Amino acid sequence: MEKMITVLPGDGIGKEVMEAARAVLHVIEKRFDHVFTIIEKEIGGAAIDRTGEPLPADTLASCQQSDAILLGAVGGPKWEGGAVTPEQGLLAIRHALKVYANVRPVSVFKDLTALSPLKEAHVTGVDFIIVRELTGGLYFAKPKERRSEDEAVDTLAYHRQEITRIVTKAFQLARKRKKKLTSVDKANVLETSKLWREEVRAVHAAFPDVTVEHMLVDNAAMQLIRKPSQFDVIVTENMFGDILSDEASMITGSLGMLPSASLSENGPALYEPVHGSAPDLAGSNSANPFGMVLSVAMMLRHSFQLEEEAAAIELAVQEVVRTHVVTSDIAASEQQAATTSDVIEALVSC
Amino acid sequence: MEKMITVLPGDGIGKEVMEAARAVLHVIEKRFDHVFTIIEKEIGGAAIDRTGEPLPADTLASCQQSDAILLGAVGGPKWEGGAVTPEQGLLAIRHALKVYANVRPVSVFKDLTALSPLKEAHVTGVDFIIVRELTGGLYFAKPKERRSEDEAVDTLAYHRQEITRIVTKAFQLARKRKKKLTSVDKANVLETSKLWREEVRAVHAAFPDVTVEHMLVDNAAMQLIRKPSQFDVIVTENMFGDILSDEASMITGSLGMLPSASLSENGPALYEPVHGSAPDLAGSNSANPFGMVLSVAMMLRHSFQLEEEAAAIELAVQEVVRTHVVTSDIAASEQQAATTSDVIEALVSC
Ligand SMILES: CC(C)[C@H](C(=O)O)[C@@H](O)C(=O)O
Ligand SMILES: CC(C)[C@H](C(=O)O)[C@@H](O)C(=O)O
Repeated sequence: MEKMITVLPGDGIGKEVMEAARAVLHVIEKRFDHVFTIIEKEIGGAAIDRTGEPLPADTLASCQQSDAILLGAVGGPKWEGGAVTPEQGLLAIRHALKVYANVRPVSVFKDLTALSPLKEAHVTGVDFIIVRELTGGLYFAKPKERRSEDEAVDTLAYHRQEITRIVTKAFQLARKRKKKLTSVDKANVLETSKLWREEVRAVHAAFPDVTVEHMLVDNAAMQLIRKPSQFDVIVTENMFGDILSDEASMITGSLGMLPSASLSENGPALYEPVHGSAPDLAGSNSANPFGMVLSVAMMLRHSFQLEEEAAAIELAVQEVVRTHVVTSDIAASEQQAATTSDVIEALVSC
Repeated sequence: MEKMITVLPGDGIGKEVMEAARAVLHVIEKRFDHVFTIIEKEIGGAAIDRTGEPLPADTLASCQQSDAILLGAVGGPKWEGGAVTPEQGLLAIRHALKVYANVRPVSVFKDLTALSPLKEAHVTGVDFIIVRELTGGLYFAKPKERRSEDEAVDTLAYHRQEITRIVTKAFQLARKRKKKLTSVDKANVLETSKLWREEVRAVHAAFPDVTVEHMLVDNAAMQLIRKPSQFDVIVTENMFGDILSDEASMITGSLGMLPSASLSENGPALYEPVHGSAPDLAGSNSANPFGMVLSVAMMLRHSFQLEEEAAAIELAVQEVVRTHVVTSDIAASEQQAATTSDVIEALVSC
């Protein structure tokens, strides 16, 4: 198979974890006889520094011509509060690529349950995915402005079609899993949530084999802590998804392990680890590369249908974790912590 | 002291826990020589059933003439999806009484740490309050409508004055505590959050002794699980506050213990337990009355400046919990669970 992949290391530890992605892709190429053409471009702070733009035109063009995109992370104190911010690059690329569905699997690695802030009984059996609407709602709808010196407004608007496609995607994913969908909204207060709930009911007709439950967002925030194992697939709008998916990632206690995918209708999808750019760790060869590497596995599976290759990566990650070659964020002690390069080396020799 | 209190039992277990509030107030009256004139009115489903309105005019009038208001809980499946809902009564009373500041203390009872889904090390030392803006933002701003068959819109708008008063209230509370304020927003995406952050900085000038930290809402959702003991006072806008305060209440593992206060600028304040109406428990004499009783203590302290009386109630609750006269939600086992009446009896004889 021949594929073109644009890689966007971004800022901070994004650069280091992308090295892991490249190394792993190289092994897969050789072992399974594929050709991955990798084009590296800038985004975020790195792009601002060189071009003044968080998403330069040639970066976007390369992404649009690719079969898939890998992103490291963007942001850092250097650019905070500026007129142009790295985060704008992230929002812009989501919008331009129309990646409306952010998919985040949340599961606790067998050998890492001890890292969870939750008691073992509460994290055992946790294995769900959050499907977050990523290109609508409060993030993009207009008006979104400072109305006067003293007034500001953001708009939470949804069109039925935006809901249909994300909810359909969530039903499809649930059908391949435990067939349980939890739709999260605030239908007792929000008009957009009433439309959302209505549309979930409508789409459900095409997926009678999937059980649907509607949960208010405040209750969902509680249930994620009380009993996260109750969930299979959670679908929700953009801002609720931002909050709940980060809450969910913390219940694993190993943020550095988590991958994500942002899918579009027909265009290339974008894969990135859940963790941020961690500027304080940058350059110290201590960033956990597993979230990025597992994002590569998601890419192989979802964008290229390379199931065997994806599974090989996931198995390698499990094996390396099992043998304790892990960075300090998930190591049993500082003394036992490996470097990013150590982990990459262990991974490629699996 | 003579005070007039409107009590609104509402629906479900609201009625049962309000009995506890009355019993405790009666003891305080006698023991400390006060006169509390208690007027009972309907709100929520109970009000809808009798009058068609979730907040009848005479209920509101009584509240407005009172020195303080106690609310049980509203809602239940009976009224779900109706054109008129119990929750509308709650939103209407908040709006009418202008109770812009919802204050929720979150702490873990010494004898109840085992109930938390979090490991003991993570809940030890948890003692913070969430100050939620309660009368603005997505809950009330216009437009808020179904634009067409296929489009819906809600509006997140804030005026600087709305931010000033809630943030000032939060600074005042922080000053009386550990002097640390965490302001939660989404300033990397929302215009309202940028105004919010700006105003927090401005108000900070009058409270130089308080340390301020700005935290993004997604990060706050993580930090509440990762290390809840880091917080002292959290202040945030309405919807974020709804989500985060429920998340926070779950980290204690004992939702039934938590009180809340909703404060206005000059008018009467409203006190209610954090838990809901729990329709499935209604009438079974098994509802946990402590959240309601601790709300009474908050009322005595904040609305009537009766510090000694408030402390007496809090001490009694601690004592009753210590002697294991508790309802099934916080009992060590079903067998050891007391009834609501048992708990009330234990409380009043403390
Ligand atoms: C950086 C920020 C704009 C972004 C978001 O809120 O979507 C991030 O928190 C995320 O979840 O990817
Ligand atoms: C019932 C609902 C409208 C209400 C809210 O969202 O404010 C409730 O969740 C609360 O937090 O008091």
